[in-house]
Amino acid sequence: MKKLINAPENVVKEALAGMAIAHADLIDVHFDPDYIVRKGAPHNKVGVISGGGSGHEPMHGGFVGYGMLDAACPGAVFTSPVPDQMLAATKAVNGGKGVLHIVKNYTGDVMNFEMAAELAAAEGIEVASVVTNDDVAVENSTWTAGRRGVGVTVLLEKIVGAAAEAGADLATCKAIAERVNANGRSMGMALTPCTVPQAGKPGFELAEDEMEVGIGIHGEPGRRREKLAPARDIAEMLAGPILEDLPFKSGDAVLAFVNGMGGTPLIELYVMYNELARILKDRNITIARSLVGSYITSLEMAGVSFTLLRLDDEMIKLWDAPVHTPALRWGM
Amino acid sequence: MKKLINAPENVVKEALAGMAIAHADLIDVHFDPDYIVRKGAPHNKVGVISGGGSGHEPMHGGFVGYGMLDAACPGAVFTSPVPDQMLAATKAVNGGKGVLHIVKNYTGDVMNFEMAAELAAAEGIEVASVVTNDDVAVENSTWTAGRRGVGVTVLLEKIVGAAAEAGADLATCKAIAERVNANGRSMGMALTPCTVPQAGKPGFELAEDEMEVGIGIHGEPGRRREKLAPARDIAEMLAGPILEDLPFKSGDAVLAFVNGMGGTPLIELYVMYNELARILKDRNITIARSLVGSYITSLEMAGVSFTLLRLDDEMIKLWDAPVHTPALRWGM
Repeated sequence: MKKLINAPENVVKEALAGMAIAHADLIDVHFDPDYIVRKGAPHNKVGVISGGGSGHEPMHGGFVGYGMLDAACPGAVFTSPVPDQMLAATKAVNGGKGVLHIVKNYTGDVMNFEMAAELAAAEGIEVASVVTNDDVAVENSTWTAGRRGVGVTVLLEKIVGAAAEAGADLATCKAIAERVNANGRSMGMALTPCTVPQAGKPGFELAEDEMEVGIGIHGEPGRRREKLAPARDIAEMLAGPILEDLPFKSGDAVLAFVNGMGGTPLIELYVMYNELARILKDRNITIARSLVGSYITSLEMAGVSFTLLRLDDEMIKLWDAPVHTPALRWGM
Repeated sequence: MKKLINAPENVVKEALAGMAIAHADLIDVHFDPDYIVRKGAPHNKVGVISGGGSGHEPMHGGFVGYGMLDAACPGAVFTSPVPDQMLAATKAVNGGKGVLHIVKNYTGDVMNFEMAAELAAAEGIEVASVVTNDDVAVENSTWTAGRRGVGVTVLLEKIVGAAAEAGADLATCKAIAERVNANGRSMGMALTPCTVPQAGKPGFELAEDEMEVGIGIHGEPGRRREKLAPARDIAEMLAGPILEDLPFKSGDAVLAFVNGMGGTPLIELYVMYNELARILKDRNITIARSLVGSYITSLEMAGVSFTLLRLDDEMIKLWDAPVHTPALRWGM
């Protein structure tokens, strides 16, 4: 196992410690229970929090800051955080206007966020939740009942974070979040596996001439294992199911998000973006906004995912609103 | 060779095409000769350009935009661009106040930028050049006479770009660039090699328990091949030679830049940042500014480099100034 770490059991805490120093102007890191919280919390607004297993950086901790998340709860690598973390984070960000939980659809995350929401409610905090489930690759999976939550989560956290920052109330934030999830679809693939530090060996294997199409962000199986193919064919394999599922139609305006899985160089992401842009142009779908980079990752896995979000004017306005987090920043 | 590409010989052009669409608000891409140029060029200021082999993305094309570069010339992967590219870019950004060439110290780059500068001068364009050579790992290397130019180049492009944007003249821009280069030092290491697409196989090999310390950004040999070590030991191996070289002293304020080589997940970069912060604290060196991410890469190589830049007040002000490029953005 080749990793820049000290001991496998300390990776998450040490990375959090590094984040705390590197971004001391934006965030505070609380340990035991572990959560990352926006500087100066609680703010006079709806609190927006998320969380999930570590190993997907910069998601979610890298999205804590002005205009996005108020807190993030990192679990062990590829392991749900525990309710104590979500409860502590919920209390830390509650400014009296309620707290929205953004939950990716994985069984452990959903269960633990639900428990935290009940505990918070028992303490008089109003909590609403949204569950993302945008991955069109599989209907059920090793880790989920129903579809997995993937790339749309990043976009949703930005858009809803902007709404909360602008003063939207909890019901409005929840409604916008549900609209974003309903209008977004994703699918990913991998060229190589990844290794959970405490496991010490890859979670699966791929031959030198193989790739996994429809893979999940924990390396869980996708639709099928295939022979390696050119970028243009891979782009079709990912974009096709996404476009058919919603379905996206001629005349739609979308946010096109090409995401690296952690070990993918940027030059390849731009090659893939070029292919996606061609596919969308052929279908008369306009790319109104773009995001290219590694934002929801699977440790050092090499691969790519596409996310398309059908935009309306309000979503565009909220996407464009200022944001200042470790991983996404503009307008300030 | 596992890559998200179509044909090896088309990778650079297709990635440039993707960038052109993804960042159409910021840049234009010109083909044959290939260069990326800031929207609306020339601007009424000193033009700042750079260039070098591709495979180091986002450097340099990702740094074209307001407050940083006016143009970038991408060569083939790990191959210097040709003088025609630099000449065309120089002419495209020349607003009558002269053009600064930022050149990393590699033999091909230096030679071709010199030739382009002479050709531009013959057409009446005032050109000044700065050569970065911040890599303390080796005094000479496969690809250079003298030290290699690495991470400081990123910081220098930001700082000098801000100076040019603020109206500094060519001599002032060159002087600031030289001051940044003189006060910055870097060193890197790799856990895994990388494969140039047209070569089809890794440029070197590393056993499962080996790493290369002091490696260059093309995979060229470093100081030594060693057994894998914990993050804290690797941090000492990189920071030690950097700190001794300038030397950095108790009381210095630095910009600490922890850079991923392309295939390194962010969680590991934060573990390494945490180690670097500890080392600096022990020596009473203050981290005044930070940058953590993959900004000067070697395709899919897994590894890390440290860059430390000793800051003065003017450098801090220029670092903090607004920038809007595909890869670095703040203040706007």
